Amino acid sequence: MRMDKLWFASDYMEGAHPTLMRRLLETNLEPSEGYGTDRHCERARALIRDACACEGAAVHFLVGGTQANLCVIDQLLMPWQGVVAAETGHIATHEAGAIEGCGHKVLTLPETVGKLSAKDVRALAARWQADGNREHTVMPGMVYISQPTEYGTLYTLEELNELSAACRGYGMKLYVDGARLAYALACPENDVTLPDLARLTDAFFIGGTKCGALMGEAVVFPDADIAPHFFTLMKKRGALLAKGRLLGVQYEALFEDGLYLRIGEGAIRAADRLRAGLKACGIPQFIEAPTNQVFAVLDNARYERLKPRIEMSFWETVDEDHTAVRLATGWNTRMEDVETVIGLLKCEGTI
Amino acid sequence: MRMDKLWFASDYMEGAHPTLMRRLLETNLEPSEGYGTDRHCERARALIRDACACEGAAVHFLVGGTQANLCVIDQLLMPWQGVVAAETGHIATHEAGAIEGCGHKVLTLPETVGKLSAKDVRALAARWQADGNREHTVMPGMVYISQPTEYGTLYTLEELNELSAACRGYGMKLYVDGARLAYALACPENDVTLPDLARLTDAFFIGGTKCGALMGEAVVFPDADIAPHFFTLMKKRGALLAKGRLLGVQYEALFEDGLYLRIGEGAIRAADRLRAGLKACGIPQFIEAPTNQVFAVLDNARYERLKPRIEMSFWETVDEDHTAVRLATGWNTRMEDVETVIGLLKCEGTI
Amino acid sequence: MRMDKLWFASDYMEGAHPTLMRRLLETNLEPSEGYGTDRHCERARALIRDACACEGAAVHFLVGGTQANLCVIDQLLMPWQGVVAAETGHIATHEAGAIEGCGHKVLTLPETVGKLSAKDVRALAARWQADGNREHTVMPGMVYISQPTEYGTLYTLEELNELSAACRGYGMKLYVDGARLAYALACPENDVTLPDLARLTDAFFIGGTKCGALMGEAVVFPDADIAPHFFTLMKKRGALLAKGRLLGVQYEALFEDGLYLRIGEGAIRAADRLRAGLKACGIPQFIEAPTNQVFAVLDNARYERLKPRIEMSFWETVDEDHTAVRLATGWNTRMEDVETVIGLLKCEGTI
Amino acid sequence: MRMDKLWFASDYMEGAHPTLMRRLLETNLEPSEGYGTDRHCERARALIRDACACEGAAVHFLVGGTQANLCVIDQLLMPWQGVVAAETGHIATHEAGAIEGCGHKVLTLPETVGKLSAKDVRALAARWQADGNREHTVMPGMVYISQPTEYGTLYTLEELNELSAACRGYGMKLYVDGARLAYALACPENDVTLPDLARLTDAFFIGGTKCGALMGEAVVFPDADIAPHFFTLMKKRGALLAKGRLLGVQYEALFEDGLYLRIGEGAIRAADRLRAGLKACGIPQFIEAPTNQVFAVLDNARYERLKPRIEMSFWETVDEDHTAVRLATGWNTRMEDVETVIGLLKCEGTI
Repeated sequence: MRMDKLWFASDYMEGAHPTLMRRLLETNLEPSEGYGTDRHCERARALIRDACACEGAAVHFLVGGTQANLCVIDQLLMPWQGVVAAETGHIATHEAGAIEGCGHKVLTLPETVGKLSAKDVRALAARWQADGNREHTVMPGMVYISQPTEYGTLYTLEELNELSAACRGYGMKLYVDGARLAYALACPENDVTLPDLARLTDAFFIGGTKCGALMGEAVVFPDADIAPHFFTLMKKRGALLAKGRLLGVQYEALFEDGLYLRIGEGAIRAADRLRAGLKACGIPQFIEAPTNQVFAVLDNARYERLKPRIEMSFWETVDEDHTAVRLATGWNTRMEDVETVIGLLKCEGTI
Repeated sequence: MRMDKLWFASDYMEGAHPTLMRRLLETNLEPSEGYGTDRHCERARALIRDACACEGAAVHFLVGGTQANLCVIDQLLMPWQGVVAAETGHIATHEAGAIEGCGHKVLTLPETVGKLSAKDVRALAARWQADGNREHTVMPGMVYISQPTEYGTLYTLEELNELSAACRGYGMKLYVDGARLAYALACPENDVTLPDLARLTDAFFIGGTKCGALMGEAVVFPDADIAPHFFTLMKKRGALLAKGRLLGVQYEALFEDGLYLRIGEGAIRAADRLRAGLKACGIPQFIEAPTNQVFAVLDNARYERLKPRIEMSFWETVDEDHTAVRLATGWNTRMEDVETVIGLLKCEGTI
Repeated sequence: MRMDKLWFASDYMEGAHPTLMRRLLETNLEPSEGYGTDRHCERARALIRDACACEGAAVHFLVGGTQANLCVIDQLLMPWQGVVAAETGHIATHEAGAIEGCGHKVLTLPETVGKLSAKDVRALAARWQADGNREHTVMPGMVYISQPTEYGTLYTLEELNELSAACRGYGMKLYVDGARLAYALACPENDVTLPDLARLTDAFFIGGTKCGALMGEAVVFPDADIAPHFFTLMKKRGALLAKGRLLGVQYEALFEDGLYLRIGEGAIRAADRLRAGLKACGIPQFIEAPTNQVFAVLDNARYERLKPRIEMSFWETVDEDHTAVRLATGWNTRMEDVETVIGLLKCEGTI
Repeated sequence: MRMDKLWFASDYMEGAHPTLMRRLLETNLEPSEGYGTDRHCERARALIRDACACEGAAVHFLVGGTQANLCVIDQLLMPWQGVVAAETGHIATHEAGAIEGCGHKVLTLPETVGKLSAKDVRALAARWQADGNREHTVMPGMVYISQPTEYGTLYTLEELNELSAACRGYGMKLYVDGARLAYALACPENDVTLPDLARLTDAFFIGGTKCGALMGEAVVFPDADIAPHFFTLMKKRGALLAKGRLLGVQYEALFEDGLYLRIGEGAIRAADRLRAGLKACGIPQFIEAPTNQVFAVLDNARYERLKPRIEMSFWETVDEDHTAVRLATGWNTRMEDVETVIGLLKCEGTI
């Protein structure tokens, strides 16, 4: 039966952190204004502005990441502009053409462990500016990155500084998809804070769905003036939640005593333990990342034997005999399950 | 303080029905597959197919009504087609251009108490077919109606039969927005059932957000074959919920013992009592509708005096001295609050 | 055989004015840069700027009216805005959803003989601003009118002044579709000049296709700064002509000695003669317009008898026994054909 | 003065073939129905169907290539599908996001001398089908290629057969951009005929703008049923020419005695002579292609010296010291100009 399985397929397999559920329950029959205009949303916005040390920020709550991405990008680009992303960027691969659905091209650049380099961004922008035919091509108007990336890796503060400078130098916006941001903030290796994001980007979102909320992403525009009528745009794109309060209540709980900054800590410890276990078993990592996603290269026989016991994500075919898989930990991962997984990895040859 | 106010502004001011909240709590830490592929969604789909007596239906869960409308319409129309709606239809007025955002025109027709007539639909379709320049114009490809309408009125089964026949006769799809469907189903005047909707339309949605759920709308395509790849289209439009289970769990609770069919009953009784109270006070109704929305024409002095006490919706300016307002009841409206409102209406001149 | 027919169906039935054809022939084998960057386009732009008394204007050449409309509107609106038009406006009726295809709603207002009133425009804008739910609706961002209108009527300078003031007062752009502008400029009743258009609007186009060119419309943005990267937008919308020179050569010929201002004169005389003929025959006009479109109400028997002899446009069914038709004259209409038509109208009962 | 320059920048620098200009002149004042419904268009359609040996084909005339591409792709794709193209494909690089502007993603594959391989197409389609997350990604619904390619290279009949089989095997449409098709058809190396294109593709266009017409591209759907209401879609996209006759007259002239099949012959001879001249001078070709585009790698000093004399296209920077340029011949290139160019290349060091 399913409950017997060890669930490491993703970080959105379960519901919400108990604190958030309790708040939802407590406020369940409290009447509120709709569409995010209620006092919970207002308080959550204030808490987020504080956490970002950015009093002028506009904060909007949306239900999901693709929704946030398409609304922000549609808001900030002009019709003749496109958005630059890594070839492995979520908007380039796993959003079913959502950005193109708003009329904008995704311009891809090669990546290293999921990351764009400021150098490549500068080169692309310079190439566009130098191109005699540039007016026949899509103007790069924005750079999209994820922190952590789709591979669980992190931009350093220095890298983010450079990307920000590159974007500003070429008149491009910088936007950060923070679907798993809590796992970056909880990672000892990380040196990029919320105030850094507010200082260095034009927009970013603080992911809730994968970080302890039932659902929800908080979009932050550090300079509110660059996103006029975002409420209407959200409505147009089907992204405005009638009971906006649901998101406000959760973000209030996530930010009123710093829960968001701590919520990923257990997941990082669990992932670190998994990575150590892989090493101990001599199983190579597909990519070595410091956050809550662990990528292992399994030989196919082992993969087949583990599949009935561990719910994990197929990542890609490495070669005829090997498969890369992803094991994701989350705010709620139990260390005992991690140990069971490691035990299975170690002795699985004997099962 | 706000809690003192009487909340009749809308039917989505509060959270979820206690049964649904309990289920969400019970299943909160149960790991599930994402994106609506879990067993709760599967069971909710089966229950909805049963309730609609339509075993072949495809059922999809979305978070909100605008989202449902734009996804369904984008799915069923070809690029050269538009959707016909009443001038007061939600997609024509209060969705910020969501349908146009997918590239489709909303073709409006006059309405009577919020309803389209089969006669007008036939005339529009016939006019298009007879128009020598029709290939320069948008082809009407679908008819959109709401049950109940934006004015709280109901299509009768006979009217729905005629609309369905008109649409089928002219090769147009028929789609019903059921954001408040529970209030139609609970209304003694109503003679349109879920199986009728499944039999007579090409798509409809069973509203959750305004009918006892935290959020959620269940889109039903009675013939699954007309909506291939709707999952991908939902993703493209930002309408695919990662933790799809949240919607499945709620619809399971709404449909496993017929709760959805009963959940609007109290709201109808409360609205009927309000309407009786208005009559007793000699206050005219702006539109007389049988469901959970009550429309009153207040003289402006009375309106100003009531506003601090009753949270209601401004509807429109009737003339210099009168304003139309809407009071909406919901699955959770307390009859004592209704009586307080009536008391205020009666004696408000003396306050 | 067809050549026997009298062609009054439209003003784009024939090719180009002989002067333009001669220029195209003379320059046919002259090599030029592409995409409107050649010296003919540059000279035509300078001539148009002079004719408009607007040295700072940006001028772009497009091939057709729908193309011009969708490009200009896409350029000037933000994603949350729509364009206001008369219910009979070309973009609202006969452009197959081109504006919606760019994601924008067309907001319609009632018209009088094809014209919008400043009063109605102000009322719509004021209503939007006063609407408590305005952020759920499409923001009116621009007003679209045609000069002459789709009914051949003309805005007076006073009316245009008022519309312009209304738009500016409410932060809306004003855009004029001049597909038949030459017939306005040649009309004795007209008091709106090219410099007036440049002074009072944000964009307009000077129609070529219906006014003596093979094809072509010259879009003018009096303030070049409001339309950055319009070249790229034209490319994106498929509106950039590789051999842009074709349009430059024609507009050079139309504007170098004022031909454009005179080219419609014969058409107006012919239309006036037609209108006089209708009156003499006791045939009512459907709408009395002063430019090159003549609208007659024919009884159906007469209509059927005339159809094989006169190519005219069905306009609409007036009642069971009468049909409104349009007869359009053009820069090349021969007065002898007009007299033949009048003769047919007079004596057609005896044919 | 400019006329002194040698024009090899592109194949659309001049007007139309004299035969076409004569026909346009002869028919200039002949009244015709609009929008491509006239007898010239009808006759041109019949001639093209004959030339393609495809009696059931639908043929539509559009003004430009980007326009043709966006209309065809918008017609044939569903909203959840994208189009596969070479990384160097025109729709991927030089159309300013026109395809994305219709809501569709361009999925790129690596190319060899501008060509896609059936193997890569099969692999992409198979990878999509095998991907467990495929419903979160854009479904490849069509393959776009150009004949000749953007590098002047040609698909062989065998390659086209394989691509066609790959597409049909995976349920994808195959579409060929024939902007320069006349130069393929006139090339001795070419073995792909118009009937082959009609047999093996779902849509293609027969380029006019670069092949002797003033402007125009003839879109062919071998199976008319797959493109219903294409006329309306053209109108929606601003691609319907009012005086459609202009295109019909030209295609009539191009196809009534096989002119189109011969019109590129001189350009091929001229390009062959240029290629021989480059070899004689020891100047390497950037890509060796058999049609009317010649790609040379020049050292920068030579490039600077030639630029004032020869109008050619910058292609790309090869290294610090070398630049790739394109010289295009056309139906009207004079062999004496080719010889002058070769003379300049030979002795240019001494100028």
